[in-house]
Amino acid sequence: MGRSATPTAYVAATGTALPGDPVDNETLGKTLGVSVEWIDLFVGSRYRYFGWDPATFEVRSTLADLCAEAAAQAVDAAGLEPADIEFLVLSTATPDVLLPTTATVVADRLGIDHIPVTQLQAGCSGAVQALSLGRSLIADGAGAGLLVGGDVTHRFLAQRPDVLHMPTQELVNHVLFGDGAAAAVLTAEPVAEGVAVRGVLNRCTGRGRAPGQILDWYGISDRAVERQLMSEDYKAVEEHVPVMSGEILWELLGELGWGAEDIDYLLPPQLSPRMTDRIVERLPAPAVAEVSCVADTGNTGNALPFLQLDQVLPRLETGQRALAVTVESSKWIRAGFALEKV
Amino acid sequence: MGRSATPTAYVAATGTALPGDPVDNETLGKTLGVSVEWIDLFVGSRYRYFGWDPATFEVRSTLADLCAEAAAQAVDAAGLEPADIEFLVLSTATPDVLLPTTATVVADRLGIDHIPVTQLQAGCSGAVQALSLGRSLIADGAGAGLLVGGDVTHRFLAQRPDVLHMPTQELVNHVLFGDGAAAAVLTAEPVAEGVAVRGVLNRCTGRGRAPGQILDWYGISDRAVERQLMSEDYKAVEEHVPVMSGEILWELLGELGWGAEDIDYLLPPQLSPRMTDRIVERLPAPAVAEVSCVADTGNTGNALPFLQLDQVLPRLETGQRALAVTVESSKWIRAGFALEKV
Repeated sequence: MGRSATPTAYVAATGTALPGDPVDNETLGKTLGVSVEWIDLFVGSRYRYFGWDPATFEVRSTLADLCAEAAAQAVDAAGLEPADIEFLVLSTATPDVLLPTTATVVADRLGIDHIPVTQLQAGCSGAVQALSLGRSLIADGAGAGLLVGGDVTHRFLAQRPDVLHMPTQELVNHVLFGDGAAAAVLTAEPVAEGVAVRGVLNRCTGRGRAPGQILDWYGISDRAVERQLMSEDYKAVEEHVPVMSGEILWELLGELGWGAEDIDYLLPPQLSPRMTDRIVERLPAPAVAEVSCVADTGNTGNALPFLQLDQVLPRLETGQRALAVTVESSKWIRAGFALEKV
Repeated sequence: MGRSATPTAYVAATGTALPGDPVDNETLGKTLGVSVEWIDLFVGSRYRYFGWDPATFEVRSTLADLCAEAAAQAVDAAGLEPADIEFLVLSTATPDVLLPTTATVVADRLGIDHIPVTQLQAGCSGAVQALSLGRSLIADGAGAGLLVGGDVTHRFLAQRPDVLHMPTQELVNHVLFGDGAAAAVLTAEPVAEGVAVRGVLNRCTGRGRAPGQILDWYGISDRAVERQLMSEDYKAVEEHVPVMSGEILWELLGELGWGAEDIDYLLPPQLSPRMTDRIVERLPAPAVAEVSCVADTGNTGNALPFLQLDQVLPRLETGQRALAVTVESSKWIRAGFALEKV
């Protein structure tokens, strides 16, 4: 269940949605009252996008807006109609509301009806969890399905932070994350890009481990209580994510009988450009082309693996292989997938 | 995808968790300042359970507590070990936190590791969505998996409401819902109870329809904004849910080639006892034994279909059939399943 080497699904096409104009470090630094050098040192991103106006905090793009845009683009790029889609799986950590789910709102926007519409609550592994489930649904008989991942920051970051009194690890959140969504169409037969999913790894390995990331929310009853809703154990992340990334790479390769030299493209974890650099330099595939986008988008959570997929699909030539690795630090979910252009 | 008649999975066992002592209408009426007659007229429940102390609002059972208790019970009742479980799917509308997911915390509590752990964001159809996915995962090769559904009210109901100034439709929420979790073990081969899942229906039919239920949440940035987080369009629910229930029943029967007279037990929607009565009296299966528990538990959302399952499993004799119907009003998801004791 955690992995499988049987090729049963194909990535037909992708779609992406990043709201508004990119926000550069000069602009973000001024808004936050921190230096460009500080952003570069701790995170390393050049740009990110926000679906809200940093001046007025007005929300211009909801998660549903971004997900619907990316999803429609993916369906169109696959040469399919909404009526061809037999399931929709959307993953996010930051739903617009708890009910109705963003997934069902996206289905409505696309004119998709009378199919199973599933919303996964997940962090960085959400896109791979969606791919894993989508692959099982294709194996169980579906012809085509839509996978969507996205996250938005406005409920966690919109207020002007008090940077002078904020611990660094909390301030980092304000420069680390960005808004975005991306989608992929999965099919039983190769259409459009027709890239075979050769393997998917999706394992929760949090037994006995403290969470590395916490994202909380307020209800009616407890919104007056002061507490930090978002926190990362960056020390644990720095210690475990590079090691786990290597383990995921080797496990996927081992399952498929591939060597590190058989990969043409590597899609590494995208927590931040600084962390990605640290991970990639430890991975045993030096000749491989790296496909990273976090420097230009910020950490967009559930969208990121699909954004990487969007970059690698048109570059893959027949017989070429790509391998994606992601680690969700919340409860230490190891995830990844392997693609081959047929 | 929305349905299938191939028997590929079996319900091996169930588990349930309802926190503390049942709260009767006299007690609830006194706490809220409403009459027992009013509760009876609008909702009709006799009891419900709360994982929090109505006097102090202190939380005694989290969603993870309840889900872990129900899940452990189900694994035990199936005669399995946690190590036999190859996937975990948990559905809820009211997660403890956004990350780590309650599903991953439950896996940790049970000592389950290195498997896919999925959390679905869903309302009344969540248990059936979990069953639908679980069935596909069994069809795709898994031997045994754990399905868990649960909801808790403390963030939405814990504050003493101002009943004099609260609209009836908002006040109803305070008597309609209860806390609880329930679980089922799904297997590829018949073990323990070994009841075959003959069909599952799971269709989002919200295209062009306004949501019938909204459940919102607050982040850091917007918790000072006054807005109603929880609302139901009870008029739309009363108009559509009985009609949809009949359609679900007929569609499941039609798919399976069963007649209404072939069902032995009916598990109807459990919004409230009053609504269940209205639905059942319209359904074309008068000789069928009804399996309802909402009068004794309140509406426990994602737990409810599994609570009904827990009641019907030991009553089913070889060759007997049960049919469950549920409607999620958030975006009008039609859901149901058909069981047969083999």
